[in-house]
Amino acid sequence: MTALGIAARVRSGQASARAVAEAALARVAARGPAVNAFTAVLEARALASADAVDARIAAGQDPGPLAGVPYAAKNLFDLAGLPTLAGSRIRRTAPPAGADAFLVRRLDAAGAVCLGALNMDEFAYGFTTENSHDGPARNPHDLGRIAGGSSGGSGAAVAAGLVPLSLGTDTNGSIRVPASLCGIFGVKPTYGRLSRHGAFPFVYALDHVGPFARGTADLAAAYDALQGIDPADSHQAPRPPELVTPLLGAGLGGLRVARLGGWFGRMQSAAARGAVEAVAAGLGARRTVEWDLAEATRSAAFVITASEGAALHLPDLRTRLEEYEPLIQDRLLAGALIPAAWLHHAQRVRALARDQMRALLAEWDVLLAPATPVPATPIGQETLELDGHSVPLRPSMGLFTQPVSGIGLPVVTVPVQRADGRLPIGVQLIGAPWTEALLFRAAAALEAAGICAAPAAADFAAGAI
Amino acid sequence: MTALGIAARVRSGQASARAVAEAALARVAARGPAVNAFTAVLEARALASADAVDARIAAGQDPGPLAGVPYAAKNLFDLAGLPTLAGSRIRRTAPPAGADAFLVRRLDAAGAVCLGALNMDEFAYGFTTENSHDGPARNPHDLGRIAGGSSGGSGAAVAAGLVPLSLGTDTNGSIRVPASLCGIFGVKPTYGRLSRHGAFPFVYALDHVGPFARGTADLAAAYDALQGIDPADSHQAPRPPELVTPLLGAGLGGLRVARLGGWFGRMQSAAARGAVEAVAAGLGARRTVEWDLAEATRSAAFVITASEGAALHLPDLRTRLEEYEPLIQDRLLAGALIPAAWLHHAQRVRALARDQMRALLAEWDVLLAPATPVPATPIGQETLELDGHSVPLRPSMGLFTQPVSGIGLPVVTVPVQRADGRLPIGVQLIGAPWTEALLFRAAAALEAAGICAAPAAADFAAGAI
Repeated sequence: MTALGIAARVRSGQASARAVAEAALARVAARGPAVNAFTAVLEARALASADAVDARIAAGQDPGPLAGVPYAAKNLFDLAGLPTLAGSRIRRTAPPAGADAFLVRRLDAAGAVCLGALNMDEFAYGFTTENSHDGPARNPHDLGRIAGGSSGGSGAAVAAGLVPLSLGTDTNGSIRVPASLCGIFGVKPTYGRLSRHGAFPFVYALDHVGPFARGTADLAAAYDALQGIDPADSHQAPRPPELVTPLLGAGLGGLRVARLGGWFGRMQSAAARGAVEAVAAGLGARRTVEWDLAEATRSAAFVITASEGAALHLPDLRTRLEEYEPLIQDRLLAGALIPAAWLHHAQRVRALARDQMRALLAEWDVLLAPATPVPATPIGQETLELDGHSVPLRPSMGLFTQPVSGIGLPVVTVPVQRADGRLPIGVQLIGAPWTEALLFRAAAALEAAGICAAPAAADFAAGAI
Repeated sequence: MTALGIAARVRSGQASARAVAEAALARVAARGPAVNAFTAVLEARALASADAVDARIAAGQDPGPLAGVPYAAKNLFDLAGLPTLAGSRIRRTAPPAGADAFLVRRLDAAGAVCLGALNMDEFAYGFTTENSHDGPARNPHDLGRIAGGSSGGSGAAVAAGLVPLSLGTDTNGSIRVPASLCGIFGVKPTYGRLSRHGAFPFVYALDHVGPFARGTADLAAAYDALQGIDPADSHQAPRPPELVTPLLGAGLGGLRVARLGGWFGRMQSAAARGAVEAVAAGLGARRTVEWDLAEATRSAAFVITASEGAALHLPDLRTRLEEYEPLIQDRLLAGALIPAAWLHHAQRVRALARDQMRALLAEWDVLLAPATPVPATPIGQETLELDGHSVPLRPSMGLFTQPVSGIGLPVVTVPVQRADGRLPIGVQLIGAPWTEALLFRAAAALEAAGICAAPAAADFAAGAI
């Protein structure tokens, strides 16, 4: 059932929010452990929220556009009463959050019902959600494979059909990678578009927040609900909301679409290449264009991420290093040793890359690139063979996402339909800042044409698609 | 003679631009060496520019609002045909600039006549213009004292009456400090307001460019001529010019003015305190407000400056260290050792400071602070006594300027009239981003009331005022 389908039934009285929440909680209890998406299930909160929705309906009030829709949030979003783990062990003893994060409040205000908190890479520093404290999030399409990360729980929960919507964050690809590997839709909006208030920080200049869903209409409904100016978040651009839902059916008329070549045409599987080709064909993209500074921008994002991650955690790194996720300890220590001069060079690369992209995006509305170089890989795998090179797998999942978020561009990631039995993979629809509406239009057209869709969650029980 | 007075005579045919340029060149030749403001006098260029102005007038064309007005530029601005020294020895063998800097082109397009390049601290890294390669710029009001820096030549040339206008840059106070010590007006516009294209860089996030003059009408005319969108400068904000000249006579009606206390009320001489009091009385400022993060913002600006300066010069620092200005070698080396984590903390401080200031500037149009803690000090002096502490003089000249530029706020620095024989000192009029017009209005009102004025240049010959 889609989010909008649930909301329609709840709003019209065909189903109570309470019944929807109970069914969702039962689904999470029955099928959740296999994918290990949830780190906290908030039954009491969910039922109270659902009852409040039902009470509003009973009183003749508008219960909101997402009335009764179950969702869950990556466990770096504040949920009142819970310590905000951000995937860590160290924060298990942190004081509980006093209030919900802004995005959680927005979804609740729209009538949605929060079911709990979701698994992630510790402190969002990873692309695989192989979390040593909570165990790995598992891919619903093959439980032995990764769900991607760092918002792996958010991807797995939606792909497994546990909830129709979830919240994630994306610093270097953490929404787009799990969307790709789990075969669902996700949007990483323009830098500064949505409030980050109440989301545990990682990298000030690169952190983005956004939703996941199984279709464009649900994704658009969630994104529209999440928009809004938050006076508490000074990173947010003071732009009024620009709703995308009304534009979903506008089709492709006049959209100028090209494929990104160069960096984005190498180091990828046939699956990734085929997915981009399918999307390019669907959108009538015939030209391939180059963004020379893509690789340098990825390097810049690495330097900024490693050094700022280290700066953020420096006090704890000094005294509690062994409590950190083993997979990130070395990276954080190395980040603490990066000289400021490197960071200045990284910032200069970003400024140049932004100029280059600005010129490209004056000519094109949508640029296409793979979201990941390969479909989901086995949990624990260390290396990847790409173009005849053996490369470390975990950082390489961000090969194509990192340059794009490095300069804050909006991206809708779409899952591409593949032959039966093949693991899903996604494609990035990349636009100029503040042009989310165009990207949603393109995604909706691809979905309407049957080119993009989330593989059926019903197949999850079989353990593979 | 003011810039506007010269332009009026030239435009009306009372004087030729050629005659004005020849007189100015003679003045520079006769009186320039004593203040050591010029590092290059461009006689041929000046006469050719002047002849072009005269030719336009003869042809009945508009020669521009600054027709025939002599000016000079800090030697980090590109002047076609000259190596852009930026105060250094290392760049004496750099290839000559192929074109003028954007601001130079703007002044020339307005009819002004460039006489040459001006002395400065090497690579703009100082507040005293004690340049070991070119010798110190000398204060026209006492030749044994500093002119301030890093735009010391720009301050001295205008204060000595050699030219009515000059161009400088300000990263941490390099326009405001020489304006204060030389007793003239200067404007450091909002970060991103004027194009930096063709100005040798120092710190990407802190570099500002702007003019000096002996009165607000001249300063406004120069500032208005300098505005304009430069497609070659991606740091510039895409805002249309907002001319301040038409608003100069608007008076103080409705302006909300307060004094900055806390950090800005300590560590200063009686001269600085008295200057702020005079300006506060003139503007009817009765309240004193606090900006808690001022000192931390100054520290942040130090970290950003030292590390980025080092990053910019790293290749030459590795191989040609001994050719650098002795006064900055240690600072650049130390900057190269700063860890990136410090820089991230500095950026976080800036973001918080900006929020704090945004709240303050929602309540107040103009905030007052000293421009320097003391009037001009003797060349070579190493320490300063402030509030009973002995502090290093050179960095301390920026005590009150550094926090303000650290978050990019616009400032007009005004010279305060003092009793005969006293060295001049300036006050900063600080505003919210993009409110230069309000600051010019306040400065013009102070000038009209006789509270602020540049001490007469005629007294320069005596060596002191």
